[in-house]
Amino acid sequence: MTYYNKTPKSRIHRHPERGVYDREQVWAILDAGIVAHVGLAEEGGPKVLPMIYARDGDTLYLHGARANHFLKAGSAGVPLCVTVTLVDGLVLAGSAFSHSVNYRCVVVYGRARLLTSAKEKAAVLDRVVDRMVPGRVGELRPTTTKELGATAVLALDIEEASAKVRSGPPGETEEDDGVWTGVLPLTLVPGTPVPAGPAPGAVPVPASVSGWGRPG
Amino acid sequence: MTYYNKTPKSRIHRHPERGVYDREQVWAILDAGIVAHVGLAEEGGPKVLPMIYARDGDTLYLHGARANHFLKAGSAGVPLCVTVTLVDGLVLAGSAFSHSVNYRCVVVYGRARLLTSAKEKAAVLDRVVDRMVPGRVGELRPTTTKELGATAVLALDIEEASAKVRSGPPGETEEDDGVWTGVLPLTLVPGTPVPAGPAPGAVPVPASVSGWGRPG
Repeated sequence: MTYYNKTPKSRIHRHPERGVYDREQVWAILDAGIVAHVGLAEEGGPKVLPMIYARDGDTLYLHGARANHFLKAGSAGVPLCVTVTLVDGLVLAGSAFSHSVNYRCVVVYGRARLLTSAKEKAAVLDRVVDRMVPGRVGELRPTTTKELGATAVLALDIEEASAKVRSGPPGETEEDDGVWTGVLPLTLVPGTPVPAGPAPGAVPVPASVSGWGRPG
Repeated sequence: MTYYNKTPKSRIHRHPERGVYDREQVWAILDAGIVAHVGLAEEGGPKVLPMIYARDGDTLYLHGARANHFLKAGSAGVPLCVTVTLVDGLVLAGSAFSHSVNYRCVVVYGRARLLTSAKEKAAVLDRVVDRMVPGRVGELRPTTTKELGATAVLALDIEEASAKVRSGPPGETEEDDGVWTGVLPLTLVPGTPVPAGPAPGAVPVPASVSGWGRPG
């Protein structure tokens, strides 16, 4: 096991017992998320936007249209914060005060660079799609040179990171005479696939879609 | 219908047709979310943390422990960005390039002030709990003075806001010969409630929990 350093920025102060610095646990949370919230300090204040992403080792990848202003600003070597939060359940205690949420959250700090190699960019886009729907890339034609040219891909090397995880029952239940206390688990669940295309339904739903689920 | 102004910060540049400025639509997305990602520009760079929240008109409420450093910094009248993102589905196109996500996202800009009135703070905490689990507050004793004293509550008046919404099938499906294209809907679904307390299961699961669901 290797650990991220507890830095002034990444150390968990509130509920330090919920802090996780084990690299593999942090990675597992990042890999289970779908959307990251990326923070950038602009002149007028902070801006936080949702982005899909992928991870390879200690590098996070973000992408978007080449003209995307936020990505352009984010590739200029400025400090970025990338946060991924998974909501696992609602925690109902005996008092309003002790209500909580079960969650897994990773906060990453680092700076990003723009990828220029078409080969590297193509590999990242495949990684993004295959992370979202494992096996999907095998069903698709390769990304074209034109498509790659229209896409900006940012690589962010993780400089500092930590996770914070709350799980289990409410911490305070002694006052619950007559009041139900416990946890309502929440999961992101796939519904029935909605086919598109010129002849919707003509192509059978592939296993990548029918068997879709997030890693634990 | 009233609308938020399209400001340099809040105007949707990429895919402007996805931009939503109608106040009621923006509010509906905020009300459907569970966790907001709050961005703050600190000296060393941006910081983005997940927080639960509540809304009343054009005011957002955030809260946490009184000693919480992030809340303390956020109450000093500095610009904040609060982003709420709901993931509605995965959009599978005929090319990796055109893959997307169906989502509803609201980005709010404003500054926050610390609430000092115990009555106001208590009302906000009730609002937070009842927003998370409608009806729950009626099952609980009132929050105590001591609990209120340990809690910091921030009120953020929305200065600028907009939403961005993608829905529907993939935009590009012409290349899908033999490739399944469409949308895999995703929903946050409650599981079986897990009772806690000294005698788990002794109190029946209330309707607030058994009937839990998010507003559309």
